[in-house]
Amino acid sequence: MSKDKPSIPKGTRDFGPATVVKRNHIFSVIRRTFEKFGFLPLETPAMENLSVLTGKYGDEGDQLIFKILNSGDYLGKVKPEDLEKGYKALTPRISEKALRYDLTVPFARYVVMNRNDISFPFKRYQIQPVWRADRPQRGRYREFYQCDADVVGTNSLLCEAEIILMMDEVLSSLGLDDFTIKFNHRGLLAGIAEAIGANGREADLCVAIDKLDKIGQEAVNEELRQKAFSEESITKLAPIFGLTGEIQDLLPQLDTLLADSEEGKRGLKDIRQMLAFLSSFSVNKAKLQLDVTLARGLSYYTGCIFEVKVNNVQMGSISGGGRYDNLTGMFGLPGVSGVGFSFGVDRIFDVLEELKLFPEDSQTITQVLIANFDEASMQYALPVLQTLRKAGVATELFPESAKLKKQMAYADQKNIPYVLLIGSEEMESGLLNLRNMRTGLQERLTLDNIQKVLQNNLNL
Amino acid sequence: MSKDKPSIPKGTRDFGPATVVKRNHIFSVIRRTFEKFGFLPLETPAMENLSVLTGKYGDEGDQLIFKILNSGDYLGKVKPEDLEKGYKALTPRISEKALRYDLTVPFARYVVMNRNDISFPFKRYQIQPVWRADRPQRGRYREFYQCDADVVGTNSLLCEAEIILMMDEVLSSLGLDDFTIKFNHRGLLAGIAEAIGANGREADLCVAIDKLDKIGQEAVNEELRQKAFSEESITKLAPIFGLTGEIQDLLPQLDTLLADSEEGKRGLKDIRQMLAFLSSFSVNKAKLQLDVTLARGLSYYTGCIFEVKVNNVQMGSISGGGRYDNLTGMFGLPGVSGVGFSFGVDRIFDVLEELKLFPEDSQTITQVLIANFDEASMQYALPVLQTLRKAGVATELFPESAKLKKQMAYADQKNIPYVLLIGSEEMESGLLNLRNMRTGLQERLTLDNIQKVLQNNLNL
Repeated sequence: MSKDKPSIPKGTRDFGPATVVKRNHIFSVIRRTFEKFGFLPLETPAMENLSVLTGKYGDEGDQLIFKILNSGDYLGKVKPEDLEKGYKALTPRISEKALRYDLTVPFARYVVMNRNDISFPFKRYQIQPVWRADRPQRGRYREFYQCDADVVGTNSLLCEAEIILMMDEVLSSLGLDDFTIKFNHRGLLAGIAEAIGANGREADLCVAIDKLDKIGQEAVNEELRQKAFSEESITKLAPIFGLTGEIQDLLPQLDTLLADSEEGKRGLKDIRQMLAFLSSFSVNKAKLQLDVTLARGLSYYTGCIFEVKVNNVQMGSISGGGRYDNLTGMFGLPGVSGVGFSFGVDRIFDVLEELKLFPEDSQTITQVLIANFDEASMQYALPVLQTLRKAGVATELFPESAKLKKQMAYADQKNIPYVLLIGSEEMESGLLNLRNMRTGLQERLTLDNIQKVLQNNLNL
Repeated sequence: MSKDKPSIPKGTRDFGPATVVKRNHIFSVIRRTFEKFGFLPLETPAMENLSVLTGKYGDEGDQLIFKILNSGDYLGKVKPEDLEKGYKALTPRISEKALRYDLTVPFARYVVMNRNDISFPFKRYQIQPVWRADRPQRGRYREFYQCDADVVGTNSLLCEAEIILMMDEVLSSLGLDDFTIKFNHRGLLAGIAEAIGANGREADLCVAIDKLDKIGQEAVNEELRQKAFSEESITKLAPIFGLTGEIQDLLPQLDTLLADSEEGKRGLKDIRQMLAFLSSFSVNKAKLQLDVTLARGLSYYTGCIFEVKVNNVQMGSISGGGRYDNLTGMFGLPGVSGVGFSFGVDRIFDVLEELKLFPEDSQTITQVLIANFDEASMQYALPVLQTLRKAGVATELFPESAKLKKQMAYADQKNIPYVLLIGSEEMESGLLNLRNMRTGLQERLTLDNIQKVLQNNLNL
């Protein structure tokens, strides 16, 4: 036995029933919200051609892509001297396919391949696992789900406003109420670079600022110095980092600060337009925060950017996104603007666990267990079983006449809320014994009345 | 552009929105039925350790497993002379992980790893993709979903009876009514082997009989001859192949034929017990057929076996399964009996398409599109949009003031059943113009009445 003792690859997880049920609760809230806003589901293959993925995530990303060995004799065309060039040179000769690393590149590929059949604006959502050969650690896995929604083919700021609505709706539906939706605009960051005399250096600025939360302002300043930002620039940056408060107070200050920057003014115009849309919806503005230090590392963002943090919980952002102007350019189709965002399901799961926000009935599958005393009670139970199932009640009959204690433990372990006991007395009288496993209460009832009790107490 | 033209690996598929929506309809019927019968969801990682998968599917299967290249410098410990031993010897040195090939082996692994936490009988279902490096052809893919449900830890024939109920419920719920649920028992096949004087040769017999549908009886006989079955055995087998008809007529004939075979009598006893359970349920017996030539190739089956075929449609079996006695033995945990079955979603999809059985409303996501004429109508539309969404109507506002023709084409392409037109006249009167895209009918209605119309006509 010990020799064969099986295990799973590090960084991967089995999701047992109790966990799947809770995760499905999150997925279903996200899916329902995406669909309510008109997003359509897309699914792409787990495997992509390696050429589709290579070069899209930077050198470091390329190393983290899981490659699939060609099937059959993959060494057929490999010569011994090929080994000398090292593994990086060998990889494309023995591997043509790889596991998807995110949902964004496959989406861009799909749009380019199907551009003649898609009617734009194309609103798609995608909820699928991705794989990364990262070093596994707490909260970081080698297989994890992403939940993305994107609109491509329109510049309308309505999309940005609706992203905020969806973030609010998903998290509120999950029972979260104390969270902050931060937003910023890449134009503001470009304008700030100009304002501090570091024109065109917003990319480096973003990378450094992105770490503000983690490493603090001093370390960020040090990084900027190393990247040859002048002391004057760094000094000018300090008060900008301090720009916090109500959105309506911040905007005039930014008007002044960025008055000479076209990029800055573009950002402020977009933000005002997005806020105008939001004010027509009844969104809870208290949750919205304009954070000029929000950078988001990904280089492809060009407009508004978003991030959501749960307050008073130790956890990174649970949702984020932004506008990009050239997603499909990597596959030769330029000029398709889009905006998208995603939810981090693993983090949301941990937050809901910590705050005990999973509803009890989201954890139930079987609703009634019929206990099995002997052959006679089993025979009696079969039509009862079928009647309850026909009424939509998820019901099972314990398949063997085991000890009642074992059957009760089974009900407990499966979180089954009702057990139906049918002994000889019950068969004679036709009054069946219904036990509520949460309260411990037992009642003798006709099958009709049992159905009524279940109807009133279960989510049928 | 042409140089970068992206593609997907052969044998894999993108599922665009229209297809995902239809597939989800199938998945949700299957899932709902599994859960109604008390099966709990399990999800395992796409990647398993190669050692878990190797040797479980025969030599041919091992070749069809997709292996994942180790990350980092996978050549680190490989010497040039290792290449000379060929790719099969090299594989385990550069690859430790592989993609799941089916859901059965990961399930067995999960049961063994978690045997102390699982309360038996363990009823689990699993709906996930699997990957096989088969040569792609019509209807055969390298990535496809399996939908498995298994009970392990009980010998009760109630499980077999319930498999038939679930097959019937899923297919009937999908609108199929003309199908046949065939069943047989490995004990009968063993008994038949004895009866024809080929004791213990039921495995070879199964492999040959399994091809009866595809290659016909003459070719099966030829295969048996090649496997050294005697002419006498083959002659005795012919009338057994001819055993068809009503179950109640077949059973006494089999009693006589298999009177001297312990295995045969075990099979008949199990079948009678299963039928006794079924007669307490109101299952449509016309669909049930005892087929003594049903073999199912997989060697691990030991009891009842099942297969479902849709009548009058050119398509292989769409569901199948059976009882096995030693699934977890491969991981050192013997004596766990189980029974399971699965649905072939790709085949079911094709059948439903051919018979036009996908319900229209299973193909709708967005239910209302609000057309966008100009900035004024857009502003007016925003609270309308929110009101409809709050009422649970999946609604979108076209994000730009595009030509009406383009917006209508968008609604058509997304299969949106209603378009709401809000022009200057509508804004003045408060009577909005609701167009039913299926009938072409337009009505001017208050928002309240629009909600009523939608409530009555949509699946809210």
